[in-house]
Amino acid sequence: MKMSNRLAAEFIGTFWLVLGGCGSAVISAAFPNVGIGLLGVAFAFGLTVLTIAYSLGHISGAHLNPAVSFGLWAGGRLETSALIPYVIAQVLGGIVASGVLFLIASGTAGFSLSDGFASNGYGDYSPGHYGVNAAFICELVMTFMFLIVIMGATDERAPKGFAGIAIGLALTLIHLISIPVTNTSVNPARSTGPAIFVGGYALAQLWLFWVAPIAGAVIAGFFYKTFFGKKD
Amino acid sequence: MKMSNRLAAEFIGTFWLVLGGCGSAVISAAFPNVGIGLLGVAFAFGLTVLTIAYSLGHISGAHLNPAVSFGLWAGGRLETSALIPYVIAQVLGGIVASGVLFLIASGTAGFSLSDGFASNGYGDYSPGHYGVNAAFICELVMTFMFLIVIMGATDERAPKGFAGIAIGLALTLIHLISIPVTNTSVNPARSTGPAIFVGGYALAQLWLFWVAPIAGAVIAGFFYKTFFGKKD
Amino acid sequence: MKMSNRLAAEFIGTFWLVLGGCGSAVISAAFPNVGIGLLGVAFAFGLTVLTIAYSLGHISGAHLNPAVSFGLWAGGRLETSALIPYVIAQVLGGIVASGVLFLIASGTAGFSLSDGFASNGYGDYSPGHYGVNAAFICELVMTFMFLIVIMGATDERAPKGFAGIAIGLALTLIHLISIPVTNTSVNPARSTGPAIFVGGYALAQLWLFWVAPIAGAVIAGFFYKTFFGKKD
Amino acid sequence: MKMSNRLAAEFIGTFWLVLGGCGSAVISAAFPNVGIGLLGVAFAFGLTVLTIAYSLGHISGAHLNPAVSFGLWAGGRLETSALIPYVIAQVLGGIVASGVLFLIASGTAGFSLSDGFASNGYGDYSPGHYGVNAAFICELVMTFMFLIVIMGATDERAPKGFAGIAIGLALTLIHLISIPVTNTSVNPARSTGPAIFVGGYALAQLWLFWVAPIAGAVIAGFFYKTFFGKKD
Repeated sequence: MKMSNRLAAEFIGTFWLVLGGCGSAVISAAFPNVGIGLLGVAFAFGLTVLTIAYSLGHISGAHLNPAVSFGLWAGGRLETSALIPYVIAQVLGGIVASGVLFLIASGTAGFSLSDGFASNGYGDYSPGHYGVNAAFICELVMTFMFLIVIMGATDERAPKGFAGIAIGLALTLIHLISIPVTNTSVNPARSTGPAIFVGGYALAQLWLFWVAPIAGAVIAGFFYKTFFGKKD
Repeated sequence: MKMSNRLAAEFIGTFWLVLGGCGSAVISAAFPNVGIGLLGVAFAFGLTVLTIAYSLGHISGAHLNPAVSFGLWAGGRLETSALIPYVIAQVLGGIVASGVLFLIASGTAGFSLSDGFASNGYGDYSPGHYGVNAAFICELVMTFMFLIVIMGATDERAPKGFAGIAIGLALTLIHLISIPVTNTSVNPARSTGPAIFVGGYALAQLWLFWVAPIAGAVIAGFFYKTFFGKKD
Repeated sequence: MKMSNRLAAEFIGTFWLVLGGCGSAVISAAFPNVGIGLLGVAFAFGLTVLTIAYSLGHISGAHLNPAVSFGLWAGGRLETSALIPYVIAQVLGGIVASGVLFLIASGTAGFSLSDGFASNGYGDYSPGHYGVNAAFICELVMTFMFLIVIMGATDERAPKGFAGIAIGLALTLIHLISIPVTNTSVNPARSTGPAIFVGGYALAQLWLFWVAPIAGAVIAGFFYKTFFGKKD
Repeated sequence: MKMSNRLAAEFIGTFWLVLGGCGSAVISAAFPNVGIGLLGVAFAFGLTVLTIAYSLGHISGAHLNPAVSFGLWAGGRLETSALIPYVIAQVLGGIVASGVLFLIASGTAGFSLSDGFASNGYGDYSPGHYGVNAAFICELVMTFMFLIVIMGATDERAPKGFAGIAIGLALTLIHLISIPVTNTSVNPARSTGPAIFVGGYALAQLWLFWVAPIAGAVIAGFFYKTFFGKKD
């Protein structure tokens, strides 16, 4: 597959992840009486990954997340030359998705970016007011386990075809645990999109949602390769 | 497979999509205290597609949606001569489903068509009062991504057998995002059934739920074929 | 496989369907503040079938439901000599499950059989007070579509291995639509278990939950065989 | 696969089960207005198993639970020499998970171990105040059925690859039924982790969550082997 097509798939896929995940949070989570709640948002994020894994996975691998690309690179599954282009395509997809979400969400009275626009945060900007240490540990551990699942489910010894289900629902699980802590990132592209629109605190806190997920992912990539990798 | 059998499958399948999706919305969404909410409705719509994909997909391909048939036609997956018959069978299935739903739902006091009967709408008739522009963009983008998932998941390079899960849950995801905007259509047959029973505004706004989904789907069909299609 | 082993599997499987589905309704649906609601009950019923389909399907076919056995018999998928033994094993499993559920549920103060014990009903005993006609139509149509999914998903032309997912989640979908109407049966064994413990109205109304599901299932069996069956 | 690698997988996997399941309960279940409720917790527990089954199942079998290891040993699927090492790795994983959860959860004001920290209990410490007899029966029957599903779904006659879905969602189902009774254990390692942090009653009641699940599992292992096992 040509790199341009792979990057188009990463762009479209990350666009869908951010539009679907953040969109469900902004538009539907707290809809009066029948809102989908954090459970619905957790499913929405997971289903973006599940649906793209099965539809564009054969084009680009469906990383949709700079931390995933870094982790798979650390685990020996992504060539070095593709890493930065993948990350750029993902971030652009996330930003464009936030723009489209803004267009839709601002179509009703009462919408305000100051409600957060699904941005990630810690301390005063954590949904449950969790501090920076808890936020960092949480993002690091969640992304570590996300990459363990990704490395394992795409291992040639794992059952064929099921990786998209396992990986998508792993992201759902991660959101079920951690939305109150940081609004859940584990994905720098997902954090960057809304932060650009919200500005201020969201940009000031954005560093954590690049550093912690990528650190957790890189550790997991090495960990899986070392302890669980197939020995030749 | 003979065309008459394919059309019977599209009729039955779209009947199930509209009865199940709209039925869960009308009967169960706001049931006191234990109602299924928009999350339950989102699962119901998605599961209609998932269940028919695995049970009648081998008969007709399980489009169940004029926009899907148009999109697959644009993507080179449906012969031109089948397009209009498929659409007619789908619309008839949606209308009959609305009739059966009316028979069931009207069996309790307090039922009223003026509560909306799960019809789609924008502006004053959008659940969250989203304007016509937001509604159009939303329906167009959601159906575009729905067809990307459908084209990709049924691509011969995708894992075999998983398309029904990916496509069904893509419809769940789309509802998790967009019910507050338009009550979610992405499917002209699903919109037409209730609109015929509700009349008035529902029929007057029906154009959007034909134009935007079909436009999004056709663009996606061409897009996938051009950028992600298998080159011979 | 010997018939005694098949019947043991039907007994255990229907035991699980009734214990899990009715148990979630009795114990968890309306638990204060964090109850699972009708959405949780719908998943519980569906997951009983999904889990047994994959674990005991290779023993007995995992019907777990007299209507399913009748429908598969009508569709030419079950030998006539097995029909009545299957039904008896299923009903016994449902009754024993209701007994075990009674043992567990009565272990807390405030439990009362007069709260319904997840029995099915119409009119005054319908959760949403739906009349007998709506109840009959609903049970008949839901079971008809359930058998269409079952016949289709186990057709040799359908994707291999996915039938358990499609059929289990079809039962979830059916519950998402119809719990308010009849508390959802589509399964005479599931209705008979609780009715024996509740007595009175539950036994008096039990006829509908035998007649309507079996009628819908038998019609579907013939329908699928006639319109969608593989021609030799 | 070397035993050290298998034990590492059991440690990591049980770490994820307890962090994800108990974490969702402690952090997200009762979050104001949009909390995930018991339904979300049920999905979280199930998805920990589903995700590890597909990612580390090829390393260790993904038991993640001493009762499962005992049951599989009774059913002739685990060698005797591996039983105790597996159990130790699982318990350590559960304890470390509880420690990490404490680090994260205590990062917000208002957290208190005296809220239960997702520990299991009966009587005054049952969420729904179910007595010890109901709790024992419930844990025994639920674990019995869990092992029937595990033994069956991993039987060589079952559809290939689907066991992770069936087993993970069986754990979701079990939680949908029984959280109000005991907060749901069916897993001594899951119970031991939080109990060590909570102390007092949680340790005093811990015996039940070792005895009942292991008893139910061992009975199921023998039962499946006897009635449903493949005869040579």
